[in-house]
Amino acid sequence: MRPCRTLLLPLLVLCLLGLSREGAAQNAPAKPRARDLGIPLGGQPGPLDAITDVPGVEVGHTTVISGQGKLVVGKGPARTGVTAVWPRGKASAAPVFAAKYALNGNGEMTGSHWLDESGFLYGPVMLTNTFSVGTVHQSVIAWAVKRGLSWDFGLPVVAETYDGILNDVEGFHVKPEHVFRAMDGASKGPVAEGGVGGGTGMMCHGFKGGIGTASRKLSEAQGGYTVGVLVQCNYGKRHQLTVAGVPVGEEISDLQACTTSDQPPSNPLITRMPKCTPKGASKASFPEGSGSIIVVVATDAPLLSHQLERIARRVPLGISRMGGLGEDSSGDIFLAFSTQTTLAAEAPVSTVSMLANDRMNPLFEATVQATQEAILNAMLAAETMTGADGIRVFAMPQDRLMEALKKYGRKPATAP
Amino acid sequence: MRPCRTLLLPLLVLCLLGLSREGAAQNAPAKPRARDLGIPLGGQPGPLDAITDVPGVEVGHTTVISGQGKLVVGKGPARTGVTAVWPRGKASAAPVFAAKYALNGNGEMTGSHWLDESGFLYGPVMLTNTFSVGTVHQSVIAWAVKRGLSWDFGLPVVAETYDGILNDVEGFHVKPEHVFRAMDGASKGPVAEGGVGGGTGMMCHGFKGGIGTASRKLSEAQGGYTVGVLVQCNYGKRHQLTVAGVPVGEEISDLQACTTSDQPPSNPLITRMPKCTPKGASKASFPEGSGSIIVVVATDAPLLSHQLERIARRVPLGISRMGGLGEDSSGDIFLAFSTQTTLAAEAPVSTVSMLANDRMNPLFEATVQATQEAILNAMLAAETMTGADGIRVFAMPQDRLMEALKKYGRKPATAP
Amino acid sequence: MRPCRTLLLPLLVLCLLGLSREGAAQNAPAKPRARDLGIPLGGQPGPLDAITDVPGVEVGHTTVISGQGKLVVGKGPARTGVTAVWPRGKASAAPVFAAKYALNGNGEMTGSHWLDESGFLYGPVMLTNTFSVGTVHQSVIAWAVKRGLSWDFGLPVVAETYDGILNDVEGFHVKPEHVFRAMDGASKGPVAEGGVGGGTGMMCHGFKGGIGTASRKLSEAQGGYTVGVLVQCNYGKRHQLTVAGVPVGEEISDLQACTTSDQPPSNPLITRMPKCTPKGASKASFPEGSGSIIVVVATDAPLLSHQLERIARRVPLGISRMGGLGEDSSGDIFLAFSTQTTLAAEAPVSTVSMLANDRMNPLFEATVQATQEAILNAMLAAETMTGADGIRVFAMPQDRLMEALKKYGRKPATAP
Amino acid sequence: MRPCRTLLLPLLVLCLLGLSREGAAQNAPAKPRARDLGIPLGGQPGPLDAITDVPGVEVGHTTVISGQGKLVVGKGPARTGVTAVWPRGKASAAPVFAAKYALNGNGEMTGSHWLDESGFLYGPVMLTNTFSVGTVHQSVIAWAVKRGLSWDFGLPVVAETYDGILNDVEGFHVKPEHVFRAMDGASKGPVAEGGVGGGTGMMCHGFKGGIGTASRKLSEAQGGYTVGVLVQCNYGKRHQLTVAGVPVGEEISDLQACTTSDQPPSNPLITRMPKCTPKGASKASFPEGSGSIIVVVATDAPLLSHQLERIARRVPLGISRMGGLGEDSSGDIFLAFSTQTTLAAEAPVSTVSMLANDRMNPLFEATVQATQEAILNAMLAAETMTGADGIRVFAMPQDRLMEALKKYGRKPATAP
Repeated sequence: MRPCRTLLLPLLVLCLLGLSREGAAQNAPAKPRARDLGIPLGGQPGPLDAITDVPGVEVGHTTVISGQGKLVVGKGPARTGVTAVWPRGKASAAPVFAAKYALNGNGEMTGSHWLDESGFLYGPVMLTNTFSVGTVHQSVIAWAVKRGLSWDFGLPVVAETYDGILNDVEGFHVKPEHVFRAMDGASKGPVAEGGVGGGTGMMCHGFKGGIGTASRKLSEAQGGYTVGVLVQCNYGKRHQLTVAGVPVGEEISDLQACTTSDQPPSNPLITRMPKCTPKGASKASFPEGSGSIIVVVATDAPLLSHQLERIARRVPLGISRMGGLGEDSSGDIFLAFSTQTTLAAEAPVSTVSMLANDRMNPLFEATVQATQEAILNAMLAAETMTGADGIRVFAMPQDRLMEALKKYGRKPATAP
Repeated sequence: MRPCRTLLLPLLVLCLLGLSREGAAQNAPAKPRARDLGIPLGGQPGPLDAITDVPGVEVGHTTVISGQGKLVVGKGPARTGVTAVWPRGKASAAPVFAAKYALNGNGEMTGSHWLDESGFLYGPVMLTNTFSVGTVHQSVIAWAVKRGLSWDFGLPVVAETYDGILNDVEGFHVKPEHVFRAMDGASKGPVAEGGVGGGTGMMCHGFKGGIGTASRKLSEAQGGYTVGVLVQCNYGKRHQLTVAGVPVGEEISDLQACTTSDQPPSNPLITRMPKCTPKGASKASFPEGSGSIIVVVATDAPLLSHQLERIARRVPLGISRMGGLGEDSSGDIFLAFSTQTTLAAEAPVSTVSMLANDRMNPLFEATVQATQEAILNAMLAAETMTGADGIRVFAMPQDRLMEALKKYGRKPATAP
Repeated sequence: MRPCRTLLLPLLVLCLLGLSREGAAQNAPAKPRARDLGIPLGGQPGPLDAITDVPGVEVGHTTVISGQGKLVVGKGPARTGVTAVWPRGKASAAPVFAAKYALNGNGEMTGSHWLDESGFLYGPVMLTNTFSVGTVHQSVIAWAVKRGLSWDFGLPVVAETYDGILNDVEGFHVKPEHVFRAMDGASKGPVAEGGVGGGTGMMCHGFKGGIGTASRKLSEAQGGYTVGVLVQCNYGKRHQLTVAGVPVGEEISDLQACTTSDQPPSNPLITRMPKCTPKGASKASFPEGSGSIIVVVATDAPLLSHQLERIARRVPLGISRMGGLGEDSSGDIFLAFSTQTTLAAEAPVSTVSMLANDRMNPLFEATVQATQEAILNAMLAAETMTGADGIRVFAMPQDRLMEALKKYGRKPATAP
Repeated sequence: MRPCRTLLLPLLVLCLLGLSREGAAQNAPAKPRARDLGIPLGGQPGPLDAITDVPGVEVGHTTVISGQGKLVVGKGPARTGVTAVWPRGKASAAPVFAAKYALNGNGEMTGSHWLDESGFLYGPVMLTNTFSVGTVHQSVIAWAVKRGLSWDFGLPVVAETYDGILNDVEGFHVKPEHVFRAMDGASKGPVAEGGVGGGTGMMCHGFKGGIGTASRKLSEAQGGYTVGVLVQCNYGKRHQLTVAGVPVGEEISDLQACTTSDQPPSNPLITRMPKCTPKGASKASFPEGSGSIIVVVATDAPLLSHQLERIARRVPLGISRMGGLGEDSSGDIFLAFSTQTTLAAEAPVSTVSMLANDRMNPLFEATVQATQEAILNAMLAAETMTGADGIRVFAMPQDRLMEALKKYGRKPATAP
């Protein structure tokens, strides 16, 4: 996802007009993903290595990119968006068993009270920037009002991470039409990753982050279930980044965020932002690691809500293996759902399936593996981005990642 | 709070223009409150018998009333609003120790994750209708952006109850300016009750409900602390209503919601709504008791967040004594805060005061008493209201309440 | 349950020998229960008005009474015991869906971690005194070891309340054989109430308390389910006692605990204990209301564990209506289970039934009603008891209770 | 900690008599610890690299080893014990702010309800085997009764892991005197690690595990606080073991538990246990990883209980980095306390210090690092042990660990 000034003219026009570019993003020649590179994170992915390997799940992005240069609140530059994850697809209002867990609650996931109480998720999980939660919340309800679903979707689930380094987050650039488009445009199949949708302006371990996804398919002996993970990755400090046990963040300590502008950033939270060199900055800017990560785990395993909470509580184990700490300023909130059970509509009593608790270990392991891989995929897919006030965040260089893995004795597994 | 058609012409104009009427509401000749009537609920109130007895607390309402007659989504009639409760007043961004508890989480209180994690409430507690959470959420952030406080107030606390019986809730009548006005107009002193602010269109035990408040002042031996409660009351079935142990709901079983229109209500949730007689309807309409109650408890007792969670967990005891059950469709979410501690700004370590756990019983009792009285005050202050599709909800008749109390041997305490 | 000195000689011998008297207790001519007296608490009970109305549930008590007069730690007097509640009867090790909630956690319920994590209760719920938790815990495991069930029952659920006013609680009078006897002696059918089993030495609102039980049977339209409640009641202050909305504690303010001895009590927690008159003491002794209440809710409604947690969270509503506050020194911990689902043994996936969330309101109401009635039944069944250091706790006088109800306009419902 | 048959005669006598050997264990020539070996886990330890670096903390062990050969329930062999961790030393009954978190609650930590409610830990944290929780629980109370502290210590905190592979766990070999000795023998200074105290019979990632400890000292700029961790390590599968990012479990896949006996184990849970070779067994026995880990985190940082819960929630991040998953059969329960605040005795209001939330990141990192190192220290200190039914569990070979680290490019840091 490159900034406006590098785009071809027709796209630039769209861009400056603030139109979404999700089509372009999704059609871009795909960069290799963690699995393509043979990075050993364990387990077997599903066919797409994506949350959409779980039957029924649909994902839609609206990417909002416009403007460049100096930040003028309300004008831009905008580097933001919305992502919708539909457990059963946009055509179904049937709830799914679900649960949440927060490693560090410096963030928002609306709808949590009813999720906890009912054990169910109604409607999509929406991801956006911190200050657009309100717009997305109301827009989901407006979407539902039009379809006579306002009672079902009246407590929408909207989660967020903060993109105020690259994006004019105080300018509220996410509009209702962006929300509707992400909801209506959701589809099965491959999921665009990196700087798209809600992840457009996000940073991860000091590299460009955003949306990432991965999946694991259990063996038949383990039940043959699929676990899919989608992350909006905006957390972490560079020096803590670890991939497959290798201290990658120590190996790639340059390419830190920097500014292409001669002016200091107008965002008062940014207390240090050096001028860009070709290798970016050599030190992290403050506030490093102040971001967050939202993780959505989907499965077709027959889990009840209290079991899905067990799944959600394993997500931190995956984040930890990438170097995360759940830092104070991070909103690390995780939601897990199972598509397996459909309640009989209006029936007083439904019959549901439940996996034995002592069969859950493979699902725990799959969750940890897919969380790691989804984070890594977010960084691998993202392109260097220049945003508000000329601040630039670099893509993780794939060659140097592979060098670091080699240095620490990690042989790539053969790509599938 | 009477419907538009009964208002004097100048007010009617304002009303039809959708302007807020908080001034009028707040200036209306006050009806007697529970304390004035000598209803024995125990304890001693503070001077205002209101949440504003806790020093620093400010409350502001914006009441949104417009239109009458047939419901046209987006046009009205509107019977809704916003209430802001500022723990330290609108001029202070300093956080307060706080905690929450949900008796039944079929509702929303945004900002809960950070409240849980940090132990603090930043900014005001906002109350509105279910579908206006998004507008209020974003407006609080916009308010903060203008004041350079977006980092502090970026995860606002917005709670809601559902006013879709009387209000065009799907029409999103709460606008940013209403939110700003409630925030900016907040003040110390008496608090308008009944059909005002976020409580404008609410029902409580089948009577007109809304905002209510009360307080308790502990004796000096108990520490001399004040506990103030503010409720947005929209829960409960009529036949369960109990006041001071008396089955008032059984004694006043008529005056149920009814319609003044010959058309059936357009809200599909309302499956039964009889034509009005002078005594309203004799049976409750469906869905009776589907509403919610939000309770804010303020205190100047030196409580830490884990102790405030203990306070919040006592709120259901007060609701129970009024006849509440925490029904499935009810969002009964409670927030407690203490104004006692001010953290040293930017200091790594602050000195805070903590009440011994074994001194908390009087605060528990005060919370239970003030919650009951705030609920009762909401019903006593509210006026009969006619709203969307001509649906009418009756004020609780004070004379019949007092008769019921007398019948069951309850002698009014002498009014103070 | 009268103190030793008033017993007939043969029983006196047993008593002084420290033998359990559960047989005697259970065969005593039953005093009228709340239902017999027509006290209006709402709803319809099951045939036994007991937790054992839920098919499969078995209850066993071992009552440990020995000695009288001066307290000598380790010698007595003992006024204590053990109660076992088996969800599916003592012959079944199959788990039940279960959940817990604590209104005030100044108490113990071992096994809570696995209950929360697994969503299941394995084995019985055991009730005893605070300091005998260890003996009961190990004895349940020893019982299971003998039967090859130590893996299933290795994290037993043992809850407690403090009987150190009447009992030599520091003397550890509950022995493994008492535990085995309560477990093995459990049966379906009527449940002995008052000063029996784990409730032997307990006080409730300043009267003699202990074990109480009640049930509610829903109508067929509501699903026909049964909710049964068993309490070990040891909480509450006298002046707060409320029955059916009537301030009974204000009406019967005498008959407070007192001592028949001329010596001050040796328990240093008892800072005030007046000499007995025929009407007991006129003021409560410290520490009034320092006790606790454990509540077990059983149902055959098809509820999952997250729904049973919803049930457990309604128990405080019942306690509140009796006047409870969840005071700081009280351990008010509640466990709810459903016998409906039996997991297929060893099967990876089980089929379970689930009641729709929106059908749960009648179960909430039944829980609140049966909790109130079980508390009242505990007090109605209990006999005046004289225990350690000659301290005497009085039974609630049934005639004065009925007078108070009459005074406040409460007409007894016709007994069934 | 070698089995009886390898001991010198005088110790053998003690051993067969079932006497504790804590003295011997503590005086054994210390094997190198993780820090001595320069294993890079980050951060700076305190002087002892132990939980006792936190001023005031005392630790005591009683190791119970007796018998060898065939398991006869109640006779042995016994390989078990008790560990006491006193936050302020055994001479102080003053509570400390504390909180807990469970990654997977298939275990016990009694006292959790009051910990949650009060925010305080009263008395020591006791660690033992699963089936000795009862004995330890009652013994702590008995200890307190003798000292007039039964009210303070009446809800003791006792946690456990399961040593039934090596120990006659159904034989209840922990006796009250063992508990008293661990409590009374607690001291400041170095802490014995490996197969001692509650950790005597434990396994960790298929190696001999047990007690381990480590600490971190923050820089003065970070506040200069100390974080100390003590683990009772009994969890994990071999192939998942990771040290400093290196897949050590894959590198050392032999030396799995085996039996020296020709008879199959009598414990029915052990469904596979091959005959020993010099390299142990080549495959893990069932049930691999069925154990648990208890983690106690101590700090002198001024944290309130809700902040200590944040610390406890970071413990899984450390376990994850060692390869743990929080498996279904594992009881992974963590308690964190701060010694900083001492409440004014009997005072209604205390003044306490509180670290700003945004200063907590270094404490999170220290917790994660010290947890990893404590786990590793437990394995490094433990000796190969042969227990019940001749089952043998091997110590992790230090040379092969270092080889594996070297192979994966991990250069030892220079030992301090």
